[in-house]
Amino acid sequence: MDDKRVAVGWDTRTWSRFHHIWLRDHCRCSECFHPTTKQRLVNTFEIPPDLQPLHVESKVDGLQVTWPSTTPHVSFYPWSWLRRNSYDPPIQNTETEKILWGSKIEQSPPTVKFEEVMTEEGPGLFKWLQNIDKFGFCFVSDVPVTPEATEKLAERVGFIRETQYGKFWEFTSDLSKGDTAYTTLALGAHTDNTYFTDPCGLQLFHLLSHTDGTGGATLLVDGFYVASLVKELHPEMYDLLSRVPIPAHAAGEHESLYRPSPPSGYPVLGHDLVTGELTQVRWNNDDRSVMRKLEAGLVEDWYNAIRTWHSCLTSPDSEYWIQLTPGTAVIINNHRVLHGRSAFNGKRRMCGAYIGMDEFQSKLAVLSEKFVHNIDLRVPEEKTHQPTRSVWSPYL
Amino acid sequence: MDDKRVAVGWDTRTWSRFHHIWLRDHCRCSECFHPTTKQRLVNTFEIPPDLQPLHVESKVDGLQVTWPSTTPHVSFYPWSWLRRNSYDPPIQNTETEKILWGSKIEQSPPTVKFEEVMTEEGPGLFKWLQNIDKFGFCFVSDVPVTPEATEKLAERVGFIRETQYGKFWEFTSDLSKGDTAYTTLALGAHTDNTYFTDPCGLQLFHLLSHTDGTGGATLLVDGFYVASLVKELHPEMYDLLSRVPIPAHAAGEHESLYRPSPPSGYPVLGHDLVTGELTQVRWNNDDRSVMRKLEAGLVEDWYNAIRTWHSCLTSPDSEYWIQLTPGTAVIINNHRVLHGRSAFNGKRRMCGAYIGMDEFQSKLAVLSEKFVHNIDLRVPEEKTHQPTRSVWSPYL
Repeated sequence: MDDKRVAVGWDTRTWSRFHHIWLRDHCRCSECFHPTTKQRLVNTFEIPPDLQPLHVESKVDGLQVTWPSTTPHVSFYPWSWLRRNSYDPPIQNTETEKILWGSKIEQSPPTVKFEEVMTEEGPGLFKWLQNIDKFGFCFVSDVPVTPEATEKLAERVGFIRETQYGKFWEFTSDLSKGDTAYTTLALGAHTDNTYFTDPCGLQLFHLLSHTDGTGGATLLVDGFYVASLVKELHPEMYDLLSRVPIPAHAAGEHESLYRPSPPSGYPVLGHDLVTGELTQVRWNNDDRSVMRKLEAGLVEDWYNAIRTWHSCLTSPDSEYWIQLTPGTAVIINNHRVLHGRSAFNGKRRMCGAYIGMDEFQSKLAVLSEKFVHNIDLRVPEEKTHQPTRSVWSPYL
Repeated sequence: MDDKRVAVGWDTRTWSRFHHIWLRDHCRCSECFHPTTKQRLVNTFEIPPDLQPLHVESKVDGLQVTWPSTTPHVSFYPWSWLRRNSYDPPIQNTETEKILWGSKIEQSPPTVKFEEVMTEEGPGLFKWLQNIDKFGFCFVSDVPVTPEATEKLAERVGFIRETQYGKFWEFTSDLSKGDTAYTTLALGAHTDNTYFTDPCGLQLFHLLSHTDGTGGATLLVDGFYVASLVKELHPEMYDLLSRVPIPAHAAGEHESLYRPSPPSGYPVLGHDLVTGELTQVRWNNDDRSVMRKLEAGLVEDWYNAIRTWHSCLTSPDSEYWIQLTPGTAVIINNHRVLHGRSAFNGKRRMCGAYIGMDEFQSKLAVLSEKFVHNIDLRVPEEKTHQPTRSVWSPYL
């Protein structure tokens, strides 16, 4: 301990330091943190900047710190919680492993059965969501060939996200919605909703019938895989794709005119501000608006970068083509996996839904709390007494 | 014209230059840009990087460029469109003026009447949305004191955004939802949904009744005004508030656990990547998660920065307090204006709704197309022939 920080030794060589003000602000006692709502109650702004503990004591389960005040305040921090939240230095936590894939995924694409997913309280739903998390997509087989069953499937993840196109949708190729998706044309690999501030997180779709015609194969491309190729081969292009924001619009209908906020838009590749990890791909060249804010000196480089991106995206090594048939639905992480289709003739009836990324992540977290036993959600003494989520949950 | 660019002179001293590849990519003829869906049809990636025009000709209304190909392709760009989209150099366009305010706004807060807003095809709705755009909030007076009328009012902007709390909501102080909002406690100025990737854009609320008690005044604070104070007085703190992402959670209910994506979160102050303009305030200290990714060297500075932010936010000069009464609803831009309330006793019945920022901006754009005549949406010759949105719209 010095006048600013408490040091905690994990072994003879590894230490973490925690600032006094940080510790006081993160007290999780029921006076400082509401045990039900999990909201902060302590007034952060009244903590004296030069606060010093009265005592610091190592207990079996964690660190106990006594703070000066009219009645001394006692805070307790489990060792596992401190270690997981070490910021000085940051200690690498194992995040979910993402599996990047190219065309060879066709040999064993992630698939679950409808029945598994629909079983109440079963781990089937968790398996489905874990597949989406790892691969960015997952098939669901043996789905009853009806919009009703497909809608129920979507709602296993969370509520369906409403857009200008409605909630659960069904469509045929009639250009009813002012977007080329509603035609019979081929569509290159793209993500949906580049014209939204927060593009829909998951997209589920299910081919209900295709009569009097052929074509319409489904294309899936792992945007994270393609990004890794571009990063390896052309780091300066990767940098431009990560920096230059692209404006976009959905303006095919009279009564709406969608653009992201702010309207300058977002880069093709989005990253976590702290870790630098790639977190989002946004790509639909058809919906791109006027590049009115492109830096003049970058025009040629930027066109070269998107040409290279397009070329990696459309390479046979990246493209996974599959002819879907009624009964097999596919769900896609629209922040990672791009989709498209080949042209078709005849009449196709499709249905599907969007689900928000936040709803997906929420459900995945709730199921992880339930099924992952090493997730260390609860400190030992709480296990039997506390039915609610622990204040030490790694998600808080 | 040189081998890369066409130069356009606006007057003897002002010029814009447009790269050939940019011009070809932005051709708006019906072969290159779908006139109904407003989506790009030209294959950007097949444009030769060294493309040169065959001819460039100044017409009365705009620039005509002929491109080499088996059958030469002719593109036309109206002068007004070129000028508006000049990127080399960028020409400043007049954006909507925001009016920043402090406590003195109480002398004439923006207000519209329910009847105005509800009149079909009338400009009342546009006036309401313009007020929200300029001030970040607007009162609506003479609202029938029912949830039904309030819901209809909300739907004038767009569809109501669904969240884990439902769609249109009504509540009393019963902690039914695992959040302190559902108590009788005072709530400091905050924005809602810091735990979402895209916090709701607008929040409408309406006090339907308050019986057997007093208190519960409404607090509004212009986050953009407070940010301007901090920027002026403490630029280094403004910088930290703009750079350090804050994780957040909504974890008071068993069946959901919301966090933004990526979970590192977002800074208090969000800016347009290109213009540097302040575009979003996110602030709820109660919902802040563990600051596990804070840079060790910034801990003290960051706590100082949020203390200063809090102090400016809670200064009497910033706070606008108003005692709402049944019949007056208020709508807030939740990306700009913070809200709170004083403690109360007795029973309060409130109702309201969230609306997405994208839905608000879409409606505002559609009404601007309709009511703003100098918006230059159409080139002259199109005015009579074309009922649909122009391909030269400034929104595309």
